[in-house]
Amino acid sequence: MVAVNVNYLKLAEAYLFPEINCRVEAFLKSKPEAKDKLIRCGIGDVTEPLIPAIIIALQEATEKLSHRETFRGYGPEQGYLFLREAIVENAYKGLGISAEEIFISDGSKCDVANILDILESNLKIAVSDPVYPVYVDTNVMAGNTGEMIEGNYAGIQYLSCVEENGFIPEPNEKEKVDIIYLCSPNNPTGVVATQENLKKWIKYAKKNEALILFDSAYEAFITDSNLPHSIYEIDGAKECAIEFRSFSKHGGLTGLRCGYVVIPQQIKGKAKRGKEKGKEISLHQLWSRRQTTKFNGASYLSQCGAFALFSEQGKKEAKERITYYLDNAKLLKQACEKVGFSSFGGDNAPYIWAKYPQNFKSWSFFDFLLQEQQIVCTPGIGFGKNGEGYFRLSAFNSRENIEEVAQRFLNIKY
Amino acid sequence: MVAVNVNYLKLAEAYLFPEINCRVEAFLKSKPEAKDKLIRCGIGDVTEPLIPAIIIALQEATEKLSHRETFRGYGPEQGYLFLREAIVENAYKGLGISAEEIFISDGSKCDVANILDILESNLKIAVSDPVYPVYVDTNVMAGNTGEMIEGNYAGIQYLSCVEENGFIPEPNEKEKVDIIYLCSPNNPTGVVATQENLKKWIKYAKKNEALILFDSAYEAFITDSNLPHSIYEIDGAKECAIEFRSFSKHGGLTGLRCGYVVIPQQIKGKAKRGKEKGKEISLHQLWSRRQTTKFNGASYLSQCGAFALFSEQGKKEAKERITYYLDNAKLLKQACEKVGFSSFGGDNAPYIWAKYPQNFKSWSFFDFLLQEQQIVCTPGIGFGKNGEGYFRLSAFNSRENIEEVAQRFLNIKY
Repeated sequence: MVAVNVNYLKLAEAYLFPEINCRVEAFLKSKPEAKDKLIRCGIGDVTEPLIPAIIIALQEATEKLSHRETFRGYGPEQGYLFLREAIVENAYKGLGISAEEIFISDGSKCDVANILDILESNLKIAVSDPVYPVYVDTNVMAGNTGEMIEGNYAGIQYLSCVEENGFIPEPNEKEKVDIIYLCSPNNPTGVVATQENLKKWIKYAKKNEALILFDSAYEAFITDSNLPHSIYEIDGAKECAIEFRSFSKHGGLTGLRCGYVVIPQQIKGKAKRGKEKGKEISLHQLWSRRQTTKFNGASYLSQCGAFALFSEQGKKEAKERITYYLDNAKLLKQACEKVGFSSFGGDNAPYIWAKYPQNFKSWSFFDFLLQEQQIVCTPGIGFGKNGEGYFRLSAFNSRENIEEVAQRFLNIKY
Repeated sequence: MVAVNVNYLKLAEAYLFPEINCRVEAFLKSKPEAKDKLIRCGIGDVTEPLIPAIIIALQEATEKLSHRETFRGYGPEQGYLFLREAIVENAYKGLGISAEEIFISDGSKCDVANILDILESNLKIAVSDPVYPVYVDTNVMAGNTGEMIEGNYAGIQYLSCVEENGFIPEPNEKEKVDIIYLCSPNNPTGVVATQENLKKWIKYAKKNEALILFDSAYEAFITDSNLPHSIYEIDGAKECAIEFRSFSKHGGLTGLRCGYVVIPQQIKGKAKRGKEKGKEISLHQLWSRRQTTKFNGASYLSQCGAFALFSEQGKKEAKERITYYLDNAKLLKQACEKVGFSSFGGDNAPYIWAKYPQNFKSWSFFDFLLQEQQIVCTPGIGFGKNGEGYFRLSAFNSRENIEEVAQRFLNIKY
């Protein structure tokens, strides 16, 4: 029998969101009449329709595909130049990033997961706790961890993000790691790293020859002008950081699938064994080889949809949508306050990280909120040990639903 | 510095199609006036517009995305059930495959490449020679080969496909391998495996506990009713074979990105080290874990487009398109015959595998055809050592271009 990747067998039973779905389905099975009352503030999926600028772009692109002269088959694996240039012009102006350094993909989750393909196994990684589960699970699969012991995987450096440090991870100067995952605006806490935070991490990365994987899928939600949208706003980042971005939340393309990763030409890794041992290798080149061999480009329609976000109309409409979700977040924060739950994030992010009453545990509060109020949240423990005591609320919903959630919060008795 | 995957450094310089593009670009730079005359019969990309059934489906789906009530965000990682059920009903009726066993993806190339994620490194693989380069390159990247020695990677079993065996690989009974790649209708030779061929392979796989990876991306081109479209038409395949299929060639979705893989529940692998050593593991479960963690589903629009291929109108229009390309193949075969090139394939596949005159080598014939006739072919050597002596012609083109290619063939002097 063919030998399987035994690293997969180390993975804890179910991935967070399937588990949430299972519990919701079981609840609805036992209480079908609750279906219409159910409001999902769990998974971070957009709820509002695509903005008109994107719809028009999709219609036009579809029309092109119906004529021989304008039909497009395989596109470039790295993505269409028109989109890569628009990204540079709009998201990285003045930051010294070129279109060559942008790789379009079918979504940020894939990029964040697949980047490990070009690296060795047995690397030491650092993640925040709480953490977006994909960072951890993909490292387990890639063989960068040991077994799970009491809720944590052996070999991973978990960086505590708690109320005392404002939920921002700090470098552990005593221990060298190979890779650091940073997510800002953060999923799940909704907190954004400052310039000072990122400077510390770049200094650490340079000192320890570490690689920073910077996930800024939610950067479009930053409204505070003092907060960095890109890690490349900080000097030195281009030598040590890869940045992941998405059109999912920004433009509502969760179902269309389009994201990108920025890999500056300067970033080097090293061959640590084999014929080329000791040689410095461009990560940009390795990723380019991976993508041309294992990927065939993002959908033409998705790329046309994403491109529309950079038109004047698209920018305006996308901004309105972002404001809509951020206003939802404000309402949720007010509701948390009224019912006496401390809450964090939500000002520059679509997520609120809230404290539930101490007489609960994470999944028991999830079940309580589901059963008593028909609200689906994400239990904090799903994001790591430090998530115990918290739950995540997503602001991706209609105003009507958010107002209803706020109302129901007033009924919570504990 | 972070340690890179040194297996990537074993890869030969450039992947085939980028190399072709480089040569074509260099030629056009030196002779810009040739641009309008150039006809590409190299890469296997469709050229005709999407069929009306798909265009209508895309328009309707776009409309749905513009209203809150019908908007779709994240879809199931495994693909929408409506599409998986249509596949079972239309492509696997009576073969005992369930919708649960179908995983929709953003294309067959990704699936064929990513399947190695769930398996160990250091596996012994068998491929045909000539071979679709992705099978080989992804195994080099995964650590299943040694270094390249004289054009072949150490550790791979290359199965000779030559005129004498009708270009169909035969099992090497003397040597046990872990994985066998079979591609039928074959890319590049255009030859289709018979029931008897596949029976031999399934017998071999069962005896040696090997896994067959069966790529039938081109099955829609099979017109001979005696030839199998799916490996599951053969008894025992469900215990040892994974099948990859695509909507790219069948429906012209190369730019939209949609394919699927069938992983029967019965297929098992084994943990060969670690805590669970000796345990049998369902490959279906491992793949499901991979996809939910590292993938976020294929684009909703692409899935709607693919679904349209199963409507009455879609079937009819797709069949017309297939016939169109197959008629192109006939014209190309006739042209080969007239100029005195033996040719193979093309009857049940969009590819013709033709012999060029003996005074050439593979890339020199490519350059000759490009420079003298402004025709882009794919040099056989790009598919392996046994490709030397051959070139691949793709029938994906307009009738007008194919007729022009046929004309130009008459001018070839050698």
